[in-house]
Amino acid sequence: MNLKIALLPGDGIGPEVLNQAVKCLHAVEETFNHHFTFKEALVGATAIDRTGNPLPNQTLNLCQEADAVLFGAIGDPKYDNDPSAKVRPEQGLLKLRKELGLFANIRPVQVFPTLLDNSPLKKDIIAGTDFVIYRELTGGIYFGEKKLNEEGTIASDLCEYSEKEISRIAHLAFKAAKNRSGKLTLVDKANVLESSRLWRRVVSKIAESYPEVTLDFLFVDNAAMQIILNPSQFDIILTENMFGDIISDEGSVIGGSIGLLASASVGEQNALFEPIHGSYPQAKGKDIANPIASILSAAMLLEHFGLFEEAMSVREAVDKSLKKGIVTPDLAKKSQYGTNQVGDFIADNI
Amino acid sequence: MNLKIALLPGDGIGPEVLNQAVKCLHAVEETFNHHFTFKEALVGATAIDRTGNPLPNQTLNLCQEADAVLFGAIGDPKYDNDPSAKVRPEQGLLKLRKELGLFANIRPVQVFPTLLDNSPLKKDIIAGTDFVIYRELTGGIYFGEKKLNEEGTIASDLCEYSEKEISRIAHLAFKAAKNRSGKLTLVDKANVLESSRLWRRVVSKIAESYPEVTLDFLFVDNAAMQIILNPSQFDIILTENMFGDIISDEGSVIGGSIGLLASASVGEQNALFEPIHGSYPQAKGKDIANPIASILSAAMLLEHFGLFEEAMSVREAVDKSLKKGIVTPDLAKKSQYGTNQVGDFIADNI
Ligand SMILES: CC(C)[C@H](C(=O)O)[C@@H](O)C(=O)O
Ligand SMILES: CC(C)[C@H](C(=O)O)[C@@H](O)C(=O)O
Repeated sequence: MNLKIALLPGDGIGPEVLNQAVKCLHAVEETFNHHFTFKEALVGATAIDRTGNPLPNQTLNLCQEADAVLFGAIGDPKYDNDPSAKVRPEQGLLKLRKELGLFANIRPVQVFPTLLDNSPLKKDIIAGTDFVIYRELTGGIYFGEKKLNEEGTIASDLCEYSEKEISRIAHLAFKAAKNRSGKLTLVDKANVLESSRLWRRVVSKIAESYPEVTLDFLFVDNAAMQIILNPSQFDIILTENMFGDIISDEGSVIGGSIGLLASASVGEQNALFEPIHGSYPQAKGKDIANPIASILSAAMLLEHFGLFEEAMSVREAVDKSLKKGIVTPDLAKKSQYGTNQVGDFIADNI
Repeated sequence: MNLKIALLPGDGIGPEVLNQAVKCLHAVEETFNHHFTFKEALVGATAIDRTGNPLPNQTLNLCQEADAVLFGAIGDPKYDNDPSAKVRPEQGLLKLRKELGLFANIRPVQVFPTLLDNSPLKKDIIAGTDFVIYRELTGGIYFGEKKLNEEGTIASDLCEYSEKEISRIAHLAFKAAKNRSGKLTLVDKANVLESSRLWRRVVSKIAESYPEVTLDFLFVDNAAMQIILNPSQFDIILTENMFGDIISDEGSVIGGSIGLLASASVGEQNALFEPIHGSYPQAKGKDIANPIASILSAAMLLEHFGLFEEAMSVREAVDKSLKKGIVTPDLAKKSQYGTNQVGDFIADNI
């Protein structure tokens, strides 16, 4: 298969971890006889520094022409203390999601048997956890009208959803549930929000076309408890943008290492793959960042294009590195392995 | 001291646990020579069943005339599957908060040394956890304009905040921080929301009048991780209504039992005290519900009126019941003690 892949390394440890994912994709090309072309572009704080724009047109064009985008990380502390600054790195990411129509953010939450002890949660609580969050990514309060009165004393954000926005991601989530254990949980706040009540109606209607899937509902406050109290009860969680942001970051603590978690953001035409960890600027250039989340993002990319065997070989190579303890210091305090060595080991085993 | 206390037992286990709190307040009256008058009124599903209204006028009037409200719980499963029903129990609670002007919901999150093992989190993670969440309770997306277009295909909720709404709760939170470890964390999503940016500006300004307090900021998605990864880093958390709903329920899992957690909702004129657990209808009438959260809500009521010694004696009696294992089955599987016996034991020790 030929694939055009846009590389957006971004900020902090983004470039280092992305390099390891690219190494692994090269290994896949060789082993399975595919042809991937990679082109790199600027995004985030790095792009602001060089062009004044967190998402330069050239970057957007490259992504639009590519089959998929492999993303590093975004964010720089020099912008963190001033979230109201006119230009911020995050705007690049939000604009990219919107322009590429990446309406579904897909985040698997799994525990790796070799790493059960790394979790802040007790073993018996997390054993068997294996669910996927489908978070709506281009609607809701993130993109609704924002207002600030002239005096600067009243501010508002509008959370708006249409049936169409809800149904397209709901169909993806139901299809995924059908191929898994057949359980879908809609997380909302339908006892308070009009938009949540629309979600319930639309999703309940769609459920009729998926008789194999059991649908249930959970208020977001209760979901925030259940994810910690009993994470293995979940199969597919479907939710709107803001709740998904919170719930999926909460879910990321279960496995004990945020350095292992990948995500896909998909739309009709395009798809973007990124580790869920941020730019972790303190670790930049130190060869200590865990490359596995980025490598597993590449595996999700392969699966997205139906290259399941290829993805499996990446996942197996990752498992091998975990089992052999060829991991960065975040996973094993005494580890002597750096980002590059772990990347090399995994690529060599593909 | 004379206090007029309105009792709103509500639904499910509400009446049973509230009874135990009243027992303890009677004990406080006797031991410390105070005079409390109690009047009861309907709220929630019970009120809908009897009057068609989740918050009858009579109930509202009683609360307005009282010095404080002691609340049981609200909610009945027969309304749960239809959150878009025209009349719902929760509306009673939301209207009560708004009408009484209860703008600050205060939720302490603590771990009880005798119960460390009950937590889903590891001991070393939760040891030393002791923070208080200040959640704004009468603004934001809960009370903003709600719209549904005629075709029923587009729905929206407005999240609006004014400087005044932010500053009144911020002052309470800063004062609390000053009397504790002097650290206040504002949880927001200022990298995305205009209303969050207003929160940051207003709160940063107010911080100047509290030089003893260190202010820091945390995005809500990160907060959802930090509360589990390292809960003892927090002292006072201040946040808006919706984020507070999620974060405070998440925080409630740390201690290992939701049956122990109390809350206060305060305004200029009035205050309401309630356990954070819900109506738990499955346990209704079985004499198994844990009364401690309701009893500790009564302790918060006493503190609200400056009766610190009295509150301390309630807390000490609760600690005694925990240490002696005179607790309901949720805390000790083999326990033979019922709601009433635990209530009696605590009241007898005041
Ligand atoms: C950086 C930020 C705008 C973004 C979001 O809130 O969507 C991030 O938290 C994420 O979840 O990808
Ligand atoms: C019942 C519901 C409307 C309420 C809320 O969301 O405020 C509850 O979850 C709470 O936190 O007191």
